[in-house]
Amino acid sequence: MDLEGILSDVGKNLRSSLIRELLKYASVPGSISFGGGVPDPNTFPRHELGEIAKEVIENEYPYTLQYNTTEGDDQLAIQMIKLLERVYGITGLGRDNLLFTTGSQQALDLIARVLLDKDSICFVEFPVYLGAASAFRMTFTNFETVPLQDDGMDVDYLEKKLDELDRQGKIKKVKFIYTVPNFHNPAGVTMSLEKRKRLIEVANKYDILIVEDDPYGLLRFEGEHLPSLYKLSGHDRVVLLNTFSKILTPGLRLGVIIGRADFVRKTTMAKQAADLCSPSLNQRMAARFLERYDLLEYLRPGVELYKKKKDVMIKSLEENFSDIKGTKWVNPQGGLFVWLTLPDGYDTMEMFEIAKEKKIYYIPGEAFTIDDGKSRSMRLSFCLPPEEKIIEGVKRLKEVVVEYGKKKGLM
Amino acid sequence: MDLEGILSDVGKNLRSSLIRELLKYASVPGSISFGGGVPDPNTFPRHELGEIAKEVIENEYPYTLQYNTTEGDDQLAIQMIKLLERVYGITGLGRDNLLFTTGSQQALDLIARVLLDKDSICFVEFPVYLGAASAFRMTFTNFETVPLQDDGMDVDYLEKKLDELDRQGKIKKVKFIYTVPNFHNPAGVTMSLEKRKRLIEVANKYDILIVEDDPYGLLRFEGEHLPSLYKLSGHDRVVLLNTFSKILTPGLRLGVIIGRADFVRKTTMAKQAADLCSPSLNQRMAARFLERYDLLEYLRPGVELYKKKKDVMIKSLEENFSDIKGTKWVNPQGGLFVWLTLPDGYDTMEMFEIAKEKKIYYIPGEAFTIDDGKSRSMRLSFCLPPEEKIIEGVKRLKEVVVEYGKKKGLM
Repeated sequence: MDLEGILSDVGKNLRSSLIRELLKYASVPGSISFGGGVPDPNTFPRHELGEIAKEVIENEYPYTLQYNTTEGDDQLAIQMIKLLERVYGITGLGRDNLLFTTGSQQALDLIARVLLDKDSICFVEFPVYLGAASAFRMTFTNFETVPLQDDGMDVDYLEKKLDELDRQGKIKKVKFIYTVPNFHNPAGVTMSLEKRKRLIEVANKYDILIVEDDPYGLLRFEGEHLPSLYKLSGHDRVVLLNTFSKILTPGLRLGVIIGRADFVRKTTMAKQAADLCSPSLNQRMAARFLERYDLLEYLRPGVELYKKKKDVMIKSLEENFSDIKGTKWVNPQGGLFVWLTLPDGYDTMEMFEIAKEKKIYYIPGEAFTIDDGKSRSMRLSFCLPPEEKIIEGVKRLKEVVVEYGKKKGLM
Repeated sequence: MDLEGILSDVGKNLRSSLIRELLKYASVPGSISFGGGVPDPNTFPRHELGEIAKEVIENEYPYTLQYNTTEGDDQLAIQMIKLLERVYGITGLGRDNLLFTTGSQQALDLIARVLLDKDSICFVEFPVYLGAASAFRMTFTNFETVPLQDDGMDVDYLEKKLDELDRQGKIKKVKFIYTVPNFHNPAGVTMSLEKRKRLIEVANKYDILIVEDDPYGLLRFEGEHLPSLYKLSGHDRVVLLNTFSKILTPGLRLGVIIGRADFVRKTTMAKQAADLCSPSLNQRMAARFLERYDLLEYLRPGVELYKKKKDVMIKSLEENFSDIKGTKWVNPQGGLFVWLTLPDGYDTMEMFEIAKEKKIYYIPGEAFTIDDGKSRSMRLSFCLPPEEKIIEGVKRLKEVVVEYGKKKGLM
C-alpha cells in the first residue's frame, strides 16, 4: 500500500532535523566536532547514580518499576521546589505548579499542542532554538521572529510587531513569546535585567504569555545570576521550562514545566494522551540525588571545565579570526555555545562541504532559521572536545573559512 | 491573564480520563479494587534489574546517561528482533523496522499524528481501549466502531461499513483499523485465526492499514498461541505495537512500533519533535535483561499467578452471579481483564455510587465508549488483589448489583 497517500498534513510536513543529518559526519576518524550540544559524560555522577539506581529498584520497586502518575514523582517535586527556591529565589510553588516531562522537548511539544492552532501566531527569537521550532512547527503555526542583540531579544522590535498585529485585529492570534534568556542556544547571548523587565511590561501590555526556556541557567561561568522572567513577573504571566539534561544527565530525560496550576493541568492532560507518564525510576533517581548531594557543589567542577574550554575557544578565535574583517563572535557568560558570524557573502551551509574535507564540524546557522534561510553564522560547541582539539579545530576552521572565502572571491 | 482564551482547539477539548478520576477512590482503607490494569509488582525482576541498572550506569555511562538517538537503543533492537522471531515467528526484520517509544501510549499518539487529520476516519473496536481513543481523539478524528464478539471484531460488520464508505466516496478518508486481537482490554476476548485471516482480506480489499496492538500476547493462560496479524499479512499491511509494560515492568516505559521502514521513519521524525529520544538507561536495561535471562522462563510464574487469580475470579462470578439472569462474563484465555455485562437496565456508572459505599471498585463500561455513552458492562482486573480479596470483592460486587437492581426495580 502507498504510505504517502494516507499521511496526515502533519505526517507529510515532517522532516528530519538538519543537525541530526550533519552529526553523522562527526564520527569520522580524525574529525573534530563543534557540532553536538551534548554535555561531557565525564561530568556525570555515574557512581552516585549507579548506587541510587540499584537502591531505588531493590527497595522501592512497587513504585520505581510501576506506572507513575502523569504529573510525575511527588518526591522529585519536593526537591525541585526546594531547588527553585534556593537557586532562583522562586517561592510559593505547590505540587500543582509542576509537571515532569521527557526532557524540555516534550514540554515544548505539549505547550504547542494545548495553545497553538493552525492560524495561531507565536514569537520566537532569531536565531531560534531548533528543538522549539520543530515542536511548534508540527501545528503549522505562523512564526514571528524577533532579532537577538548582545543583551538579548530586541524588545522594541517585539513591541512594534505586537502593536502592528493589534492594529490589524490579530492580537488574539498571538499565543506566546518564546525565549531562552540565559546563554542562548545557539546565539550564546544573555538577556539583560533591563530587557527582562521591559519584556514583561510589553507582554503585560498586550496580555501575552511568555514561555521561558532555561536549560543552561546554572551553567554560569562569570557575571551575576539574573532573576528569571518567571520570578520577575510574579508567576502568572510566564511558563518556565527547566531540565536536568544539562545539570545532571541528559540520559534520564527529565524536564519540568513550572507554571500556573490551570496551565499545568492542561499540559498534564495532553501528556496523559501523549505517553501516559514518564518512567518512575528516572524521576526517583533524580529525587534521591537532589536529596543526598548538593547540586551546586556537584556542578562546580563541570562548570569550571566548560569555562576553561570556552576560554580556550575564545582565545583561539581571537588568534585566528581577528584578521578577518567583519567576523564577530559572542563570548558567552555560560552555557555550551559560541555563535560565530562571518563577513557578508559567507554561506556556512555551503561552506560545510569544505569543512567535511578538513574534518571539522559545526552547525550552520541555517539550522536555526525558521525557513531554512541562508546564514553566515554558525554554532560552535566547546563542551565535548578536549582543549588541544579545540585549538586544532579552530585552526582547521580558519583554513575552511579562508579556502571558501578565496573560492568565492570574498577575500 | 485568561487561559481559556488562548487555548488551542486541542487544548479546549482535552479532558482527564475517567479511569484516572475513579482510581482516586481505590486507595481508601479497606477498599478492594478491580480497577487498575497494572501488573503485580511482586512479579517484577527487581534484583536482576537493580544489578543491571548499577552495572550499565557504572560501565556504560557515556551511553546510558547521554542523549540517545530518536530510534532508540540498537542493542535492544537486536534483542527485540530475536524475541519477535522466537515467540511470534516473525522473521525478516531489520533495525529500520523498529522504533522504541514511551510505552505503547506514545506509539498510539505518534501514529495518530502522522496519519490522522481532522476529517479522517479510523475504525476502533467497541468497547475500545481507552488509551487509544484518548490518543486518536487529540486530532478530533471521526471514529467508526466495530462491535466485539466472543471471537473478536465483527469483521462482516466492518466490511459492510467499509463498503458503505466506499460507495459514498469516503474510503480514502479511512486511515486505519485499530485492533487489540489478544485478550482485549477491556473486553477480554481473543480474535480467532479465521477472523484474523478475514480481517486481512478485508483490509487488502479496501487497501486499509491495520494497527495491531498486542500488549498482552505473552500472557496466555490456556489455548494455542495464534499468529499475529503482522505475521499473517506478510508485514506491509500491518503496524504492530508491543510493550515491555506487561511482560517486564511498566516503570521502564518501553514500547515499540514494528512496521515497514517508511512508516517507522515517519513516526521517528514525529518522535524527534515530540520528545527527541527516550532514556538510554531504560532501554539498555531491557536489552541486558533480554540478553541474560529467558523472558519466557521469567514470565512463567507471573502468568501462573495471573491464571490462578483469574480462575478464582471466574469461579466467584459463577457462584455469585449465575442466579442473575441476563448477566454474562468473558472467561479470558490470557491478559488482565474480565468483562462483566449486567442485565438490561443497569448503568454501571450510576451504580458506581453504591460501589463506593461498599468499597469495591471497577471501571464502568462507559470509560470504553467513544461518546461516554451509558453501559451495563464493567471491566474487572484480577491482577493486583490477592485471592481472598478477589473472593470478597466479587461478593461485595454482588451486593452492589442487588442493591442497585432493587432500587431501580430491575429485580
